[in-house]
Amino acid sequence: MCRVTGKRAGRPRHADIGRAGTGGRAQILDAAAELFTEQGYGAATTRQIADAVGVRQASIYYHFSNKQEILAELLADTVRPSLEYSRWLEPSGEPALVQLYALTRFDVTLLSGGQWNIGALYTMPELRTPEFAPFREERALLRRAYGDRVAAAMTEGAIPAEDETVATSLAFALAESVIAMRAEGGSADPDLPDLVATGVLRMLGCSDRRIAQIRTRAVKLPDLTPAGDHWAV
Amino acid sequence: MCRVTGKRAGRPRHADIGRAGTGGRAQILDAAAELFTEQGYGAATTRQIADAVGVRQASIYYHFSNKQEILAELLADTVRPSLEYSRWLEPSGEPALVQLYALTRFDVTLLSGGQWNIGALYTMPELRTPEFAPFREERALLRRAYGDRVAAAMTEGAIPAEDETVATSLAFALAESVIAMRAEGGSADPDLPDLVATGVLRMLGCSDRRIAQIRTRAVKLPDLTPAGDHWAV
Repeated sequence: MCRVTGKRAGRPRHADIGRAGTGGRAQILDAAAELFTEQGYGAATTRQIADAVGVRQASIYYHFSNKQEILAELLADTVRPSLEYSRWLEPSGEPALVQLYALTRFDVTLLSGGQWNIGALYTMPELRTPEFAPFREERALLRRAYGDRVAAAMTEGAIPAEDETVATSLAFALAESVIAMRAEGGSADPDLPDLVATGVLRMLGCSDRRIAQIRTRAVKLPDLTPAGDHWAV
Repeated sequence: MCRVTGKRAGRPRHADIGRAGTGGRAQILDAAAELFTEQGYGAATTRQIADAVGVRQASIYYHFSNKQEILAELLADTVRPSLEYSRWLEPSGEPALVQLYALTRFDVTLLSGGQWNIGALYTMPELRTPEFAPFREERALLRRAYGDRVAAAMTEGAIPAEDETVATSLAFALAESVIAMRAEGGSADPDLPDLVATGVLRMLGCSDRRIAQIRTRAVKLPDLTPAGDHWAV
């Protein structure tokens, strides 16, 4: 019973179970993402993550202080690329609605990508703890990136001037709705990013004729695909 | 240590802690809803629920077989009233978009109401287990209630004929986006149900002039507030 090492030796190692990854850290994140999204975060342990990767628990602690830190990194990967894209768009000189269309399309692509639907963890009560304050802050910045474009478009007269806060909340929520669609095994329509971006602009009161012009400009923007070691858009 | 009865006697009972409810069952549901949404469902135990209500664990099992059954009932209360409202709307003879507007408004009101944001639990992996098949089925029926109106509106030529499935997914997701807004402590704008219903119709390609007419008809419909013993719209 106490021969833990003996027990562990029999478990399949990474190579056997074919878990994708280029290094220990990536494999840990991938295994944790599967465990958190398939079985639940609350009951998951670093021991289970280690078992899934086929390494000892000590290997997990070499890369991460605890389970929270693993989740924090997984969550950051669902907002940081879109935030970086938003910062790249800012000085482009493109009209606010072109930027909003491009940002929404990028964000939906990011949230639809990857093997595990990490966004499904956004509403967990655990995320309200201080450990996840940096993630909450980054997500708030991304929401503000949407809000800035909505406000600018209203100022420019490109869309009707209405309640900015509500309009931003609905636009941001619509982009993130792909998380709920994935959670229910919804369609992986390759046009989804464009359909959602169109939906956002329509919802803000933009005409289809204008949206067609906006889309034409937005799709000409470089299709940045931020590179990372454990996620891909 | 073994005198459990003695230990329990000292705990505050319902009357002391002022938990709202008209009977044991309602109090249990309310306490569970708080525990599940504030601390997480995974780690919650029926013992904790009993402690929160101030009763013995046996009292919980008098009303519910297990924790799953409590959650199933809480979840049903987030979709069943809207589903009933949809069935009431069906033979009303109202145009599809008037029904869609009214249904969205009702659904958003329901999801915004109640003290605890139960909808935040929708994406939990635990809900994919067989125990929650009845809930998943009811939620699928509600989605279909949206979808039937979207399809009918396309057939009637009231909105552009586009991909029904995507349009329905986005409309349903937009209604449910109030869950995410609540999870982030978003505004409790009393106009939110109308703003979301308007957003849904705009997103489907309906003009503001038509939406104004639709709203006028929809708000004349009886504002049904389904009665229940542990929830209120």
